[in-house]
Amino acid sequence: MTRPRDMRNVPLSGARLWADLMAVAKIGGTAKGGCNRQTLTDEDGRVRHWLADQARALGCTVTVDRLGNMAIRREGRDAARKPVAFGSHLDTQPTGGKFDGILGVLAGLELLRALHEAGAETEAPLLLVNWTNEEGARFSPPMMGSGGAMGLFAEAEILAKQDSAGAVFGAELARIGWQGEGDPRGLQDIAAYLELHIEQGPLLEREGASIGVVTHALAQRWYDVTVTGEEAHGGSLMAGRRDALVAASLLIAEIERVALASGGNGRATVGRLTVAPDSRNIVPARVWFSVDTRHDDAAGIATIETGLRAAAASLAAARGIAIEVTEFWDSPLTPFDAALVRHVEDAAKARGLAYRRMPTGIGHDAVYVARKAPAAMIFVPCHGGVSHNEAESITPEWAEAGLLVLADAVLAAANA
Amino acid sequence: MTRPRDMRNVPLSGARLWADLMAVAKIGGTAKGGCNRQTLTDEDGRVRHWLADQARALGCTVTVDRLGNMAIRREGRDAARKPVAFGSHLDTQPTGGKFDGILGVLAGLELLRALHEAGAETEAPLLLVNWTNEEGARFSPPMMGSGGAMGLFAEAEILAKQDSAGAVFGAELARIGWQGEGDPRGLQDIAAYLELHIEQGPLLEREGASIGVVTHALAQRWYDVTVTGEEAHGGSLMAGRRDALVAASLLIAEIERVALASGGNGRATVGRLTVAPDSRNIVPARVWFSVDTRHDDAAGIATIETGLRAAAASLAAARGIAIEVTEFWDSPLTPFDAALVRHVEDAAKARGLAYRRMPTGIGHDAVYVARKAPAAMIFVPCHGGVSHNEAESITPEWAEAGLLVLADAVLAAANA
Repeated sequence: MTRPRDMRNVPLSGARLWADLMAVAKIGGTAKGGCNRQTLTDEDGRVRHWLADQARALGCTVTVDRLGNMAIRREGRDAARKPVAFGSHLDTQPTGGKFDGILGVLAGLELLRALHEAGAETEAPLLLVNWTNEEGARFSPPMMGSGGAMGLFAEAEILAKQDSAGAVFGAELARIGWQGEGDPRGLQDIAAYLELHIEQGPLLEREGASIGVVTHALAQRWYDVTVTGEEAHGGSLMAGRRDALVAASLLIAEIERVALASGGNGRATVGRLTVAPDSRNIVPARVWFSVDTRHDDAAGIATIETGLRAAAASLAAARGIAIEVTEFWDSPLTPFDAALVRHVEDAAKARGLAYRRMPTGIGHDAVYVARKAPAAMIFVPCHGGVSHNEAESITPEWAEAGLLVLADAVLAAANA
Repeated sequence: MTRPRDMRNVPLSGARLWADLMAVAKIGGTAKGGCNRQTLTDEDGRVRHWLADQARALGCTVTVDRLGNMAIRREGRDAARKPVAFGSHLDTQPTGGKFDGILGVLAGLELLRALHEAGAETEAPLLLVNWTNEEGARFSPPMMGSGGAMGLFAEAEILAKQDSAGAVFGAELARIGWQGEGDPRGLQDIAAYLELHIEQGPLLEREGASIGVVTHALAQRWYDVTVTGEEAHGGSLMAGRRDALVAASLLIAEIERVALASGGNGRATVGRLTVAPDSRNIVPARVWFSVDTRHDDAAGIATIETGLRAAAASLAAARGIAIEVTEFWDSPLTPFDAALVRHVEDAAKARGLAYRRMPTGIGHDAVYVARKAPAAMIFVPCHGGVSHNEAESITPEWAEAGLLVLADAVLAAANA
């Protein structure tokens, strides 16, 4: 077998990758051209069989762990070396698209196929991973398979999770026939992990770049905010009112200001809000809302929190109301592995592809993997930044660009 | 029979009124001391029978119109004169109190009782009215019986209204046995209408006044506001976002400012708000909220509207979003009858009761009646301004003060 240090000799096919994307999109395909292939449904079972069949035809072995994570192994020249892993997820949102997650798995499959056709051999073994339940739409939280494998969630807790209809994760995994025997934590024992994914934002398309070299994951802190004022009739005088919604509105405006002033691409989103008692002519007594904050550095995320808490305290005092801010979820800033990021950047350069270095503001399996092993990500554009949507779309050229950079970076890591 | 020009000779009893209030509170009484006696329920039927029995024992005649409005007539000396009417409503909110509406009906009953005991005769006939469905909690809109009688709502439309369980107004009215044959519009043919009611606000209690001389009803305009921005992931950059909730929040803060700056006790309330798609990590694409504005004069209500629309247009332009403001409901400023207001004020003075002139910011049957006949209202305090609540409470002294002023004003009108 040849040892392909220069992958430009290996017959990677963007057309074959595109055909795979279209084939897989039919499993759980929707009338509007999207996908409904939620985790641990029959459709998830079917797409897993499709992937395993393809992989076995290429001489790979397929193992499954107790959380359903699929690991497709292609042996390398040096059996003593830890495998170089890559992949993403095949599950989708209920009204998801054809590319989010799927691109990363199928580009990995195309790499295995091209190596097989070329009779090429890498130094390190390769491991294509399909993580279970990245989306978190049916069973919360998201990134459950990778989080469990990296030891961030207890296996027993994951298996006991229930969906909104009361179905149990472990039982559903067994029902579709994809509960294996492997210890999920075995996936920590890798030399590297590379994940190709659509950007899910508009930046690359806007700048005309086809590759995002992802350097790190933003720090994230999510909050619950509860504002408690006093109910009053809509006919009562304004003086003396303690209107929870006006206070919440002023706080929401202030949160935007604080995030913009925090520097380094600070981000804050209030995505959910409820009002009680929710009557046209009753001054709201209680408002609850969520806050999602993200930042390029750890000091920035703390700056936003300080600003949020200060604005809440000041409004509460000025308006005689109570504002409670509690942390809901926290994810530290996660740098990707410098050597792997360099491999990605080198590949983009060598292939002559326009690229930019950028963080990911969104959680991915690679972000969890990065806590235990060297990891990095590659982004390709998606039209209008639209994802988690049946209208999600990319061009075959973007898919091919991602495939080439993923393949080059994987081979660079596996042959280093 | 005597002709009681000076009602201080008529044996009005605050204690008897209080006993009636407590007796009626048991019909639909709740564990927390409130009332659930929604319109056209069995409990509504029972309280109507109780009232009719009491009235007939006093020699009055009871007639019912096709909308279920009860008119209890006590003849006067001059049968050619139009009757002087008074009353309110016996229906309650689902978790309502013992006084809202009920006080006005039972004080009227006590007046009839005192006149009966004294063998007194008025010049004009008297008419105690129990209006159907003032609350609007089960069948919307509120003040249906008085609105129908005054020709503001079509009778057939009222009879066809459905509650949330699909029950039809006309069928429910017949089921409880209170659909009469009289034309509701007959109630327009009155010399005057006086309504005693709890304030449903904190002003009188705060000022230590036991009587509110109600001079007019505020102008009201209610709106629907729809803000349409663009969905984006919570991880996307702040630059370029078109966040519908931040825009709505800025507009809500501005609506408060505009109302406060409008002079003359302008009031604005945003009581309901919904966010879509309602996800923690999705920038809201659509927000809907209600606006309830009220003002002491017609120019003021227009000033608030101008401010609301200008703020909406300015925010929409600045943030590249769409804001649609549509009128949902409109009620013009309604002055009460000057002579009747003077009777109320004279009575408070003559009885040595602390009082203040004030508008009503809340809709009442009297406000609809005022469109077709001379009308006025008398307020008494309620603790903390709390109403539409099982905790609604007043003192026996306040109830008696209201009884005395109502009686004096009714007799002044009936004997004028």
